[in-house]
Amino acid sequence: MKLDNSKKILIVGLGLLGGCYALALKKKGFYVSAITKEKDDITYALENGLIDCGSNEVDAKLIENADIIVFALYPHTFIEWIKENGHLIKEGTIITDVTGVKSCIVYDIQAMLKPGVEFISAHPMAGREVSGVRNSDDSIFKEANYIVVPTDKNTFGAIELCKELGQILGFARVAVLNPEKHDEMIAFLSQLTHCIAVSLMCANDNPGLVLYTGDSFRDLTRIAKINDEMWSELFLSNREALLREMEKYKKAFDRLYDCVKNNDREEMRSMMRISTERRIEFNKKGQ
Amino acid sequence: MKLDNSKKILIVGLGLLGGCYALALKKKGFYVSAITKEKDDITYALENGLIDCGSNEVDAKLIENADIIVFALYPHTFIEWIKENGHLIKEGTIITDVTGVKSCIVYDIQAMLKPGVEFISAHPMAGREVSGVRNSDDSIFKEANYIVVPTDKNTFGAIELCKELGQILGFARVAVLNPEKHDEMIAFLSQLTHCIAVSLMCANDNPGLVLYTGDSFRDLTRIAKINDEMWSELFLSNREALLREMEKYKKAFDRLYDCVKNNDREEMRSMMRISTERRIEFNKKGQ
Repeated sequence: MKLDNSKKILIVGLGLLGGCYALALKKKGFYVSAITKEKDDITYALENGLIDCGSNEVDAKLIENADIIVFALYPHTFIEWIKENGHLIKEGTIITDVTGVKSCIVYDIQAMLKPGVEFISAHPMAGREVSGVRNSDDSIFKEANYIVVPTDKNTFGAIELCKELGQILGFARVAVLNPEKHDEMIAFLSQLTHCIAVSLMCANDNPGLVLYTGDSFRDLTRIAKINDEMWSELFLSNREALLREMEKYKKAFDRLYDCVKNNDREEMRSMMRISTERRIEFNKKGQ
Repeated sequence: MKLDNSKKILIVGLGLLGGCYALALKKKGFYVSAITKEKDDITYALENGLIDCGSNEVDAKLIENADIIVFALYPHTFIEWIKENGHLIKEGTIITDVTGVKSCIVYDIQAMLKPGVEFISAHPMAGREVSGVRNSDDSIFKEANYIVVPTDKNTFGAIELCKELGQILGFARVAVLNPEKHDEMIAFLSQLTHCIAVSLMCANDNPGLVLYTGDSFRDLTRIAKINDEMWSELFLSNREALLREMEKYKKAFDRLYDCVKNNDREEMRSMMRISTERRIEFNKKGQ
């Protein structure tokens, strides 16, 4: 399948990410439909030109008409949806997703689908601190990474199509990782950072501190404002990988704590130099 | 003493902060002199209009001519300087500083000074990721906090003068805290955040991760690029307060770790809700 804009794309789940996909795809001239729980969200999306048609019920016709289906649901909802409605997806359809954890869903979903329906998983690493289709803004893709996450079962064609989708959506970088590597990367770069920000906010309840807050604290805790329903599910869906990264981080923090406790300035400076050196690497690619 | 621009201000230590002070004060029409170790820095500051005169030696005349002396040195260098040269400061001079830790220096310095010389301590909570007088940029004060840190020995007049200095320098907010409260606040809001960023960078050495780094990781680790000489001294100078904040944070992080380990989603969500609520408070005051 070639991803030109004769293809019809169905988005299941019109939240923030689903809405951003719709917005970006409509701009490129694709025919976009949507299925989502709330009727209001469909109305909003229709009125604002995000979709061509949509339904707040599982609509067999919309599913049958789609060449590509994008699932923008929470992990467990995605699995339930496929269990209940997977049989409605016609042969030849490519399905993809936006889920932030992979090992725990990709193999299960692939095993549930009927022959001729291919699931190629993807993780658009973009988000906002607000949710819902009303906050859709496809400019969040501009500086972000899009990771295609194939398994051994995926075809070359579907992988290429999925990469192309990332480019069409306007992502800065498109990469490919297997589910295990993806989950390890996401545990460290995204989930651990959220754990840190949440812990820091829970560590001290002095409201007077607000007055003295500087940029470094603000930057570090920006992500402490967190959607607890979504993130608790993501953390637990990636439990093993996250625990491993949390343990590695705890060890490093304890090492620094011991330096302070034992007045070990040389060891402390050596950690700071490693940190500085590594952070410069990250600088090169962005800010 | 009233802080009009007939007052002559001497800056001891022309690094980044000393340079920013000079820049801001010259713009307001003050006569500014400087003493710093490197001759090159004096030459640069003279050629770029940051100071009116300066010396790379401890110059008795410059000290005697000053109404106000600002010490922009590392904590231990500040104490050594006063030990060696404090007798050169004439009666009636007000001295202040920019040091990021207080309890460990303020009382000692005040005890060392001769009668008639008053030390009113201050902490300009501003910085850049680069150092040196050549990076001076007084716009870093614009969004920042300036904390006046008096002890019981300070006079009302000197406290008011120091507050006025913060306003003249262009700080967004000027506040007053005693040394102990200041050190507790700085341990939590600044030093702990630097500990976290350094530990995170030391926890995982996978250079391939750079490719997938998003904004949340970049924001959280911006301060991981750290001046190890300065920060190791600041950490150890504020050791007790920092250890207490590190312990509180470790407890919160361990609590979240246990939630993940024990699949305790309810407790995890409750931490996330506390974190979200508290972070919103911080939002109100800025971004």
